[in-house]
Amino acid sequence: MYFSYAFLKNVHRWQPYSLILREAHNWGMGLGLPRPCPPALFEPKSCTYTYLLADVKSKEAIVIDPVLEMAKRDAALVRELGLSLLYAANTHCHADHITGTGLLKKLLPGCRSVISRDSGASADVLIQEGHSLKFGAFALETRSSPGHTDGCLTYVLNDKTMAFTGDALLIRGCGRTDFQQGSPETLYRSVHQKIFTLPGDCLIYPAHDYTGQTVSTVEEERTLNPRLTLSMEAFVRVMNNLDLPKPQQIDFAVPANLKCGIQDSVV
Amino acid sequence: MYFSYAFLKNVHRWQPYSLILREAHNWGMGLGLPRPCPPALFEPKSCTYTYLLADVKSKEAIVIDPVLEMAKRDAALVRELGLSLLYAANTHCHADHITGTGLLKKLLPGCRSVISRDSGASADVLIQEGHSLKFGAFALETRSSPGHTDGCLTYVLNDKTMAFTGDALLIRGCGRTDFQQGSPETLYRSVHQKIFTLPGDCLIYPAHDYTGQTVSTVEEERTLNPRLTLSMEAFVRVMNNLDLPKPQQIDFAVPANLKCGIQDSVV
Repeated sequence: MYFSYAFLKNVHRWQPYSLILREAHNWGMGLGLPRPCPPALFEPKSCTYTYLLADVKSKEAIVIDPVLEMAKRDAALVRELGLSLLYAANTHCHADHITGTGLLKKLLPGCRSVISRDSGASADVLIQEGHSLKFGAFALETRSSPGHTDGCLTYVLNDKTMAFTGDALLIRGCGRTDFQQGSPETLYRSVHQKIFTLPGDCLIYPAHDYTGQTVSTVEEERTLNPRLTLSMEAFVRVMNNLDLPKPQQIDFAVPANLKCGIQDSVV
Repeated sequence: MYFSYAFLKNVHRWQPYSLILREAHNWGMGLGLPRPCPPALFEPKSCTYTYLLADVKSKEAIVIDPVLEMAKRDAALVRELGLSLLYAANTHCHADHITGTGLLKKLLPGCRSVISRDSGASADVLIQEGHSLKFGAFALETRSSPGHTDGCLTYVLNDKTMAFTGDALLIRGCGRTDFQQGSPETLYRSVHQKIFTLPGDCLIYPAHDYTGQTVSTVEEERTLNPRLTLSMEAFVRVMNNLDLPKPQQIDFAVPANLKCGIQDSVV
């Protein structure tokens, strides 16, 4: 069904303005439903992207990979748009920044923290492949994509138009595999089996980008990613020779993230 | 017409993969045409967003507000996606960074620099309100939106689904008006008459954001922008009392930008 501007105007009559604010983001192949949209929210220190998705009809929303230092900004945006934040979800237990899920729970009561069961971390909701996080008429499906860490998840919008890949797949890159249960063989299999099997035009929203890029597609990465287009053997060789420095925040970020950002008490 | 995945797959048969890479960005109210998409490209020093728009069928593309230091990244992306860059367009003569249009012309022969006639700058193409920049089946229309500078333009996609507002309108803010022919009264009128008259769900892509946000809508800014929702008198008072420091790069950025980034010879 064609999602017309006339329809939007009709919706406007009986919905407060905040509900249609982002309906223009009619991503991908429309079903005639107001679409969630992912306004990317950037944190410059760790170059992390946080994503806010909302069903503009029900106002229910999900935040993916919030960062502690930016949680107040994210909470303000949720309030300003009149949204109800159901979940603050992590793609994995980050080593380069402290998750904002703990602070978001305090700022927006009712919000529940989410992480994978395989991460070994505490959270209100522990999920695994096949579980879904519903918000309004939409849902984020979860695909297990380990290799950067054991507990990495890729969240896929239920109509397969966008995937939030965390550190498993970055734009023309991928997460490192030299700490926190990292395994290049596992990562290679995850990306090829769980992400590259999505539709080619599925949008890729990664957890980080260090060159200022904001979005890619499955087809772009399947054909242009300089690492993931290699054979597995060549990929493993590259990943085992990156010789990267230890993440500056790992010693305090990982313990904090194992509690989903709740510093004083385990949820 | 519903822009289906089956259609995308059919397109895929006779087009190289690069052409459908970003077709999933079926922004706004579809006409059944492959849409241009604006992958935002970020430059962290001046917090500038550069936008690459392309017609995926014809491969013709436009870059808006490229930054000198990131021009190689932008040219690489254009090449990688198999695009033909027709124009490197400036929204205005920037004071906080040197435009990348000069370098892009060298890196991608055939590309032409664009700026408004009212800016007083040199360029291959001098435009003014009412002129359009065509790329494939699309065009960027220009609306004069002075106030930050005399020559500020807002580029609006011909179907009115997105507007590139430069420094005239930022997310929950606006450009300063205390140098380069700045006038708060003029800016207020520009935003209200030229931008807020666009459809409410028209996406706003500004030239900068300093808080990590990437996109807004006309409706959001019309109702939530803390400055532009004021009366003109209150707005003028606020703008005349911002007490901002002089832009660090203004003394060399403006002369360079008056030549659209061509340092040795005027185009």
